[in-house]
Amino acid sequence: MQLPSSLLENAVNEFSKLPGIGKKTALRLVLHLLKQDVGEVQHFGDTISRMRQDIKFCQRCSNISDADICSICANRMRNQHLICVVENIRDVIAVESTQQFNGTYHVLGGVISPLDGIGPDQLNIEGLVNRIQHEAVEEIIFALNPNIQGDTTIYYIQKKLQNTSCKVTTIARGIAFGGELEYADEMTLARSISNRLPVGQYVK
Amino acid sequence: MQLPSSLLENAVNEFSKLPGIGKKTALRLVLHLLKQDVGEVQHFGDTISRMRQDIKFCQRCSNISDADICSICANRMRNQHLICVVENIRDVIAVESTQQFNGTYHVLGGVISPLDGIGPDQLNIEGLVNRIQHEAVEEIIFALNPNIQGDTTIYYIQKKLQNTSCKVTTIARGIAFGGELEYADEMTLARSISNRLPVGQYVK
Repeated sequence: MQLPSSLLENAVNEFSKLPGIGKKTALRLVLHLLKQDVGEVQHFGDTISRMRQDIKFCQRCSNISDADICSICANRMRNQHLICVVENIRDVIAVESTQQFNGTYHVLGGVISPLDGIGPDQLNIEGLVNRIQHEAVEEIIFALNPNIQGDTTIYYIQKKLQNTSCKVTTIARGIAFGGELEYADEMTLARSISNRLPVGQYVK
Repeated sequence: MQLPSSLLENAVNEFSKLPGIGKKTALRLVLHLLKQDVGEVQHFGDTISRMRQDIKFCQRCSNISDADICSICANRMRNQHLICVVENIRDVIAVESTQQFNGTYHVLGGVISPLDGIGPDQLNIEGLVNRIQHEAVEEIIFALNPNIQGDTTIYYIQKKLQNTSCKVTTIARGIAFGGELEYADEMTLARSISNRLPVGQYVK
């Protein structure tokens, strides 16, 4: 694609570096911005730059934050003795949007995946163990994606916590609400049978 | 969607103003940028701001340009007496990418569309008429989208040019290459029959 201006071309190249955005979409976005006021586009650019520059990660749980301690860790109304362990910030947002969890989080920054070259040392596991040893944590709930990497990570961390009195749980795995039994894979179905619940209990 | 940081939220809001980008996609893009270097994201923001601030529109044809006159108008190797009239800059890029056109362009900035409140005065028609009167233009080729608005615009401009000797043509309309006759609408098929060409001629 031959563009008539190098300024335009640079902007299109920058946009097309973003995931899921090709050259044609990038051009559409840039031409849209070109129709906006200079001030508005300036504000767009500044907001993005400032976000990257000023954003902090919570020193306690590694969640995204405006301050040194995130709003969830700083909130005394939340149960500070309950930790939900997640892979990344997107998962924090997903769990928060259920409005069913009143504890704090711990963001690992990934899961153990030898094939991708990610070992326990690259993850925020040390911080989690520290918190459990020093913060009188009663329970940690693993909310990791249900796959081999997630299970390996749970197993690894659980081993590290054997000498503590902290309760370790994981979110339930089974047939999703609205899902159909005949299309579920065998492993999920088998697990959901072996982890069956009394009928009164599953809608607490 | 509850976000843990106002900086993050502002960035997501800015991205979700762009066409075709919702809140979830915006969040994905912002979290991607968050993984990049500070300098790289700064460069992203600056490139977008600079593009909007410094970009110019060619004084002759209204195409996007880095200088007062765009590279196509300034190129003496191109036929300066042949003008392709298009609706917007995207269409310039589309025609250029065929590598079949060696003339110049004229960007109208839209088409006459009373329903959207766009009349001839809001378009760059005056500039086109001026060019034809002063630049010894031999032919103008309309490359507008084949719909009522496009046809109205062609009709309006053609009326204005009645007293000039300039030849007025429009790009061929017919069955697209790779298209199937049975799915073509009746109007297109009827036109392609009435505008039929000798067999030797259509692959010039």
